[in-house]
Amino acid sequence: MDYRAAGVDIDAASRVVDRVRDLARQTFTPGVLSDIGSFGGLFQPEWSRHRQPVLVASADGVGTKLKVAFLAGRHDTVGVDLVSHCVNDVLVQGARPLFFLDYLATGRLAPDVSTAVVQGLARGCVENGCALLGGETAEMPGFYAAGEYDLAGFIVGIVDRGSLIDGSGIAPGDRLIGLPSSGLHTNGFSLARRIVFETLGLGVDTPVDELGGRIGDELLRPHRSYLRPVSRLLESSPGLVKGLAHITGGGLTDNVPRVLPSGAAARIVRDWHVPPVFGFLQRAGSVPEDEMYRTFNMGIGMVVVVAPGSVAAARALLAAAGEPGAVPIGTVVEGDRQVVYAQESAP
Amino acid sequence: MDYRAAGVDIDAASRVVDRVRDLARQTFTPGVLSDIGSFGGLFQPEWSRHRQPVLVASADGVGTKLKVAFLAGRHDTVGVDLVSHCVNDVLVQGARPLFFLDYLATGRLAPDVSTAVVQGLARGCVENGCALLGGETAEMPGFYAAGEYDLAGFIVGIVDRGSLIDGSGIAPGDRLIGLPSSGLHTNGFSLARRIVFETLGLGVDTPVDELGGRIGDELLRPHRSYLRPVSRLLESSPGLVKGLAHITGGGLTDNVPRVLPSGAAARIVRDWHVPPVFGFLQRAGSVPEDEMYRTFNMGIGMVVVVAPGSVAAARALLAAAGEPGAVPIGTVVEGDRQVVYAQESAP
Repeated sequence: MDYRAAGVDIDAASRVVDRVRDLARQTFTPGVLSDIGSFGGLFQPEWSRHRQPVLVASADGVGTKLKVAFLAGRHDTVGVDLVSHCVNDVLVQGARPLFFLDYLATGRLAPDVSTAVVQGLARGCVENGCALLGGETAEMPGFYAAGEYDLAGFIVGIVDRGSLIDGSGIAPGDRLIGLPSSGLHTNGFSLARRIVFETLGLGVDTPVDELGGRIGDELLRPHRSYLRPVSRLLESSPGLVKGLAHITGGGLTDNVPRVLPSGAAARIVRDWHVPPVFGFLQRAGSVPEDEMYRTFNMGIGMVVVVAPGSVAAARALLAAAGEPGAVPIGTVVEGDRQVVYAQESAP
Repeated sequence: MDYRAAGVDIDAASRVVDRVRDLARQTFTPGVLSDIGSFGGLFQPEWSRHRQPVLVASADGVGTKLKVAFLAGRHDTVGVDLVSHCVNDVLVQGARPLFFLDYLATGRLAPDVSTAVVQGLARGCVENGCALLGGETAEMPGFYAAGEYDLAGFIVGIVDRGSLIDGSGIAPGDRLIGLPSSGLHTNGFSLARRIVFETLGLGVDTPVDELGGRIGDELLRPHRSYLRPVSRLLESSPGLVKGLAHITGGGLTDNVPRVLPSGAAARIVRDWHVPPVFGFLQRAGSVPEDEMYRTFNMGIGMVVVVAPGSVAAARALLAAAGEPGAVPIGTVVEGDRQVVYAQESAP
């Protein structure tokens, strides 16, 4: 009996490592000192650019959006999802990404699938100026169903301690600006899949008129990275941004409070354009409104908190940075770190 | 329909976050600036201690050793495995760990299981002076069998560029010193499980005389961290260590070459004491000798490469650091970055 008979093929794994190495090299920034395949990835940031450099790290998964990728047989977008998610999670504290590592686990390694996944990761890394510094590809017989895998990512970013954004200066009267999402991003997929594939019985290739295309394409649309517009905003006008919230699992309801100091709450006025996919899911699944806002991003992937007098400047800077769709979505009020929704514009 | 009906319980998840927060706080070192629950974990190393600080990062999983934990219903050791594995992977480049993040994915969140896993992670982090800075706990209905989960880890360490260990100075004539493993560590479990649970039909609670206890306890014995003895060696005598290899998947056969420069090979003399579990698995599974050395660590968890005149000093320093079992296992010879095994001591 040997290891291959037990379901692990070290030779196949090392062929995948070769492909991964080529893809990863395309993402290497000047800070990378090592090649893929060393025990640890080596990275030397440009320390001199920072007075008091602070590292910001985050771990994330793609969640059950992966199941849609399995159904569609499309594996080159989930990597973009994951990198964008991670980049946004460090961006909200003011950090720019330095490097990313992935964990890809599967029952039996399918080299083409692994390569497609890493292609997506590499594309996401290149788009965000972030090095794909390493990772682990694990073949775990008996863990994952045939053709399935799990994918997690780890990111490290850097920010000067003086430029850290933690929301502590947010006060009643401040305004919330929402940046549009590209769709579901990577949250709410257990509910969305149940509605789409069980309740409605659709297939990934089923066209849905009101969505202007196939449901699978809509669901798989990659998570946006807000690095470019938000970092432009942070650089153009230091101090303007008082807080940033990435709208992930828990929606606006749970994520906006994460950056509010005690004594503050958010009053969100639901009058922005909600993309059709959310209404489609809500009606088809008879999902209560509150549940929608606690499960999905509802068209807002990032919230920027600014002083009332800075709204116009922030929107102009964002528009100049290629983000014309930033919209006012509410106000900071007195309260206990919660979100209160209002349907009307007037307070 | 709501998110809980779709299999995701955000309230249960937030209760787990509370427990995780308490455990993680016990690991916090002075560099930690954030609490668990922020979008990214914040860490400020003591930069002034380094001239040219380089970050060393690694991602790893526990592999199918998790299946043994599932069978035994014991979830508080796999976290120690994972942290030790990660610590060793950055240690071999000369780095000390700064912080660790985990990714824990399961079908349906069992708060007691998650807590036990994080207890193990926290214990591993405390033992290695490494902060558990954050992580992701993902509930993914339909991904994992009931009662199962996957666990991955991500570590960042730091080393001065001048103290980086990359094996480039290794030359023929250098000696290999092996540090004892505690058992299988986290590699070869797909083969070991097949032999133990399928070929032999044992249960985790079956006592095995030659192993002095239950097979499950033997298999679950945690992966050792070599941080204490190896960092003592690095600090006591800078320049003495020419290379370090962590013996993980691929065994001595595949891992020793990772630190050899071109033109060098390793001649390993198999006359150290191999712990009984390896002979037990080899006989029961009729596993060829070469396959054993390419699958399991065979009792050697870390290899230290030193100049021929430094062997005695290195062993004395290791013994003084609580590592009395370090043994000479071979010599660097001319060759093409491979391992050649010999049974006899004389070259």
